[in-house]
Amino acid sequence: MAGSGALETLVEALRRLPGVGQKSAQRMAYHLLQHDRLGAGVLAQALERAVASVQHCQRCHTFSEAPVCPVCRDTGRDRRQLCVVESPADQAALERTGSYHGYYYVLMGRISPIDGQGPEQLRADGLLARALDGEVEEVILATSFTAEGEATSHVLGESLRARGLKVTRLARGVPAGSELEYVDLSTIAHALVDRR
Amino acid sequence: MAGSGALETLVEALRRLPGVGQKSAQRMAYHLLQHDRLGAGVLAQALERAVASVQHCQRCHTFSEAPVCPVCRDTGRDRRQLCVVESPADQAALERTGSYHGYYYVLMGRISPIDGQGPEQLRADGLLARALDGEVEEVILATSFTAEGEATSHVLGESLRARGLKVTRLARGVPAGSELEYVDLSTIAHALVDRR
Ligand SMILES: [Zn+2]
Ligand SMILES: [Zn+2]
Repeated sequence: MAGSGALETLVEALRRLPGVGQKSAQRMAYHLLQHDRLGAGVLAQALERAVASVQHCQRCHTFSEAPVCPVCRDTGRDRRQLCVVESPADQAALERTGSYHGYYYVLMGRISPIDGQGPEQLRADGLLARALDGEVEEVILATSFTAEGEATSHVLGESLRARGLKVTRLARGVPAGSELEYVDLSTIAHALVDRR
Repeated sequence: MAGSGALETLVEALRRLPGVGQKSAQRMAYHLLQHDRLGAGVLAQALERAVASVQHCQRCHTFSEAPVCPVCRDTGRDRRQLCVVESPADQAALERTGSYHGYYYVLMGRISPIDGQGPEQLRADGLLARALDGEVEEVILATSFTAEGEATSHVLGESLRARGLKVTRLARGVPAGSELEYVDLSTIAHALVDRR
């Protein structure tokens, strides 16, 4: 391995991925170079394409290649409801229930003091602007039922209520301590109906 | 997430990495796009550079950017000894002991019927050619002390002995069932002295 600058650089770059330490990065680099050079090229191109083309939807802030994402462009949805989720994966879980027909706002995060994410990092401004478009009547807070998700929900709920919006929270049918994206669909559907 | 082709393509590409499933790939993609776009670019470039420039050393078969790697180019080593290892990481572990001063042959794998790696995939031909250069007197088999590493060692040992070479194996001081790269250095150094 000595002197192989390109290999060492690759291992270092792979370590930037979340959850990947030195040993995993080395294993990944060996695997790609030994067994999947095509895959390495595919991954390089996918990374460059994503960085170049994936931005945030101007309305809901989720990842989108268009200025406004397909969900926000869908005119057949109920403009009176806005559902706040932490991530695109959580939004996808709600969509799969088939029980929600309003629009979304995707926080792309949550309050997490450990990760240096305070309320100010939450883009609450973007959410408030979106929720105060004059058509939204109800904001449904669908952040995770973890300590961080609850704190996020609490902070956002205060701001939204202070501006006269009706704010609801998914019913506590969602098992406490769980991440929304891992919850089975019928539980999410129930929690949606029983929102308070 | 709907319609975000570049994002989905990135998640798919990340899944090609060993040990990365759908959820991890999604988390990696979100992380890069949300928090480390610079890192995504760095990784893309590192992948492309590695694929373009990292080849195999013509003498020892390890990864190398030059036709012959720095270790094989080092004329100060003992030409009478050739140590056979499974991977560059294993070679690095042996180098760190400071107890070995010969050359290496890096198999870049081992016999592993589960992964479809039979003896014929082992590049035993390359090893035989290297070992029969007229200068090598002893081949030290330093494959892992796992079932697969032992099988690899057995098969290679037979071939090498049949051609009149002296073949030794790292002493069983290395704890059985362990991968060489995770073993502490003094154990490896001992096993090297006690090779049989
Ligand atoms: Zn949108
Ligand atoms: Zn070499």
